[in-house]
Amino acid sequence: MEARAIHHVGVAVDDLDAAVATYERLFGGRLEHRERVEEQGVEAASMRIGDSRVELLAALGEDTPVGRFLAKRGPGMHHVAYAVDDVEAALTSLAAAGAELIDPRPRRGMFGLEVAFVHPESAHGVLSEVVSVG
Amino acid sequence: MEARAIHHVGVAVDDLDAAVATYERLFGGRLEHRERVEEQGVEAASMRIGDSRVELLAALGEDTPVGRFLAKRGPGMHHVAYAVDDVEAALTSLAAAGAELIDPRPRRGMFGLEVAFVHPESAHGVLSEVVSVG
Repeated sequence: MEARAIHHVGVAVDDLDAAVATYERLFGGRLEHRERVEEQGVEAASMRIGDSRVELLAALGEDTPVGRFLAKRGPGMHHVAYAVDDVEAALTSLAAAGAELIDPRPRRGMFGLEVAFVHPESAHGVLSEVVSVG
Repeated sequence: MEARAIHHVGVAVDDLDAAVATYERLFGGRLEHRERVEEQGVEAASMRIGDSRVELLAALGEDTPVGRFLAKRGPGMHHVAYAVDDVEAALTSLAAAGAELIDPRPRRGMFGLEVAFVHPESAHGVLSEVVSVG
């Protein structure tokens, strides 16, 4: 798989409003989009930081992936997402390279884009995502 | 402070050679630079992933910042670095915005670039770095 670039860095936070304000104040971030993604159990705020993007993630409940992450590890870096032309093709390539896929098929993420996650065990502890920008 | 973009994502790993190979195989990464930075206690491999960069970090010993991170949390995402025009100016701006600075003055990082770190408590659990590209 040839990733085009880092699409965003995902950060799990306790307080979404406070985190948006922090990223504005410290790094000159601009909120470009905010969305509840019920099926992922998160409310997400996409911040532009210059030409890049940080996705702030608050849990919609304790029994959600981000809720469990926060309970176990506290706020902090949650995942890295790579922009790819085609998520389906990326998943085929990742599986052939021996990666363990959390999502064997693309699903809908922020902005309505197709996304899929790769298990952190396959990438030295980093939960990795591919996002279709093709 | 107006960051230009994410300069790199830092990832703490147990085995640098294995991690380089994984990032090549899974994400089409290309090793652009490998360096021991004794004063930070790391051996680092900078991988280009498309237009972006992931910095893989192995500890030179247990009693180093990355060694302690690995002992406590295991391999995984370690920090996010933002490209700025001027680290000194960024530090002044960050301090004025209330950020707690790990490095009150710039120091030398990878590629000989000026860098400085901001305490994770100031950025919702994310160890944040500014890197001069000006």
